[in-house]
Amino acid sequence: MDSARIWTAALVVIGDEILSGRTHDKNIAQVASWLQVQGIRLAEVRVVPDVEERIVEAVNALRTAHDYLFTTGGIGPTHDDITVDAVASALGLPVVIHPEARQTLIDYYRDRPGGLTEARLRMARTPEGAELLRNPSSGAPGIKIGNVYILAGVPSIAASMLDALTGSLEGGRPVVSVTSGARAPESDVADLLRETEAAHPGVAIGSYPFFRDGRYGSNFVIRSEDGELARTTGDDLADRLRDAGYDPVDGGI
Amino acid sequence: MDSARIWTAALVVIGDEILSGRTHDKNIAQVASWLQVQGIRLAEVRVVPDVEERIVEAVNALRTAHDYLFTTGGIGPTHDDITVDAVASALGLPVVIHPEARQTLIDYYRDRPGGLTEARLRMARTPEGAELLRNPSSGAPGIKIGNVYILAGVPSIAASMLDALTGSLEGGRPVVSVTSGARAPESDVADLLRETEAAHPGVAIGSYPFFRDGRYGSNFVIRSEDGELARTTGDDLADRLRDAGYDPVDGGI
Repeated sequence: MDSARIWTAALVVIGDEILSGRTHDKNIAQVASWLQVQGIRLAEVRVVPDVEERIVEAVNALRTAHDYLFTTGGIGPTHDDITVDAVASALGLPVVIHPEARQTLIDYYRDRPGGLTEARLRMARTPEGAELLRNPSSGAPGIKIGNVYILAGVPSIAASMLDALTGSLEGGRPVVSVTSGARAPESDVADLLRETEAAHPGVAIGSYPFFRDGRYGSNFVIRSEDGELARTTGDDLADRLRDAGYDPVDGGI
Repeated sequence: MDSARIWTAALVVIGDEILSGRTHDKNIAQVASWLQVQGIRLAEVRVVPDVEERIVEAVNALRTAHDYLFTTGGIGPTHDDITVDAVASALGLPVVIHPEARQTLIDYYRDRPGGLTEARLRMARTPEGAELLRNPSSGAPGIKIGNVYILAGVPSIAASMLDALTGSLEGGRPVVSVTSGARAPESDVADLLRETEAAHPGVAIGSYPFFRDGRYGSNFVIRSEDGELARTTGDDLADRLRDAGYDPVDGGI
């Protein structure tokens, strides 16, 4: 493994319910946090509607530009669940009933009311040649095909599919982040932040202002693939904030 | 105004903090809901990092494909706030200090500690020829240039910029949605849903499963630009759910 190589991933969030504002997406933050621990950088997210050609377009643009592509949403049993068809189409593959997925669904629905209906069997459909991502929280598995990972849209089910993948994807050094906060309007410390970042090549400092309890403040996040460098920079930033008359709070406010 | 025309918008969410998972985005849902009321459909969202060329690429891909393009994030006073530069670059325009924006900042910081520093004056920078989007919650305005609307990343400030825009963008008929829910696993009603949608051309029915209080259930959202059609379809769906042995809940569960 080359530690200097940066591994990147993209995410396609599929669903009219996100674009209508009805559902607040939780998968972007969840996939992002999980990727960080795997040493993979989430480089881009696209949210697209339940329209096959729009999904195909996003999948093809992103799977070739990044090491990994994740999708969330659109893998249930209903007519608006078209992710498998769209990914297969993007890859030029036929859709088949995956024998293991069918067996999993047979077992899962054996003692459940209604049994394995045709609609439920839809959840065993995969692009030809796919591997399954097991998950304990539902009968329907996630799907891996090439560098594309197809996850559920329900956040708790997506989480259990990510759990099943933990540690199995090659990545680089995880980005380490050090956070500190101060009751400083960010515009008061803009120069100080720029100078601190410039003094420590290899770190990126983000500034995130807030307004809370009637007062302005900011959190500063120092990111680096070099943990020691992130911590040194954090100490330096804290010193500079103190010199400017602010009382930095380790870990943020 | 041609009521059959569909107006679309795209959103570019700018910020490393979203892609790292540190911050949970709230602007997608907020912009989406606001657009619905304006009769404009949010057709695509991209989340990109604080990297100028990535912002430029997304802005240029989306501003030409849609009637309106919104951006959130990256318009504060710090070194990582590069949205104005990126949008100007995408449009081939120089960045200038907007005289009204400067005056607003002068007034805003007159009685505030520190006054109008050079860092704060950065918030008066706009692409040449821009209009300002006033907002009461901070001195820094949003920006309109061509069909691009540049909003703050802090959700409450973005909200007040949207408030200032309410009713000023041309749109079509707002999409009306009717929601009903049932304690039905969605795989049990997949056929029923498909049949209902097919029986009412002009509606789209989305199905959103959940697992709550130890039981499965689903919410069904019927969307149409024809409010009467949406309501009729909702009534029909409720009848079909009752016939299938479920007890539909108006407005969802």
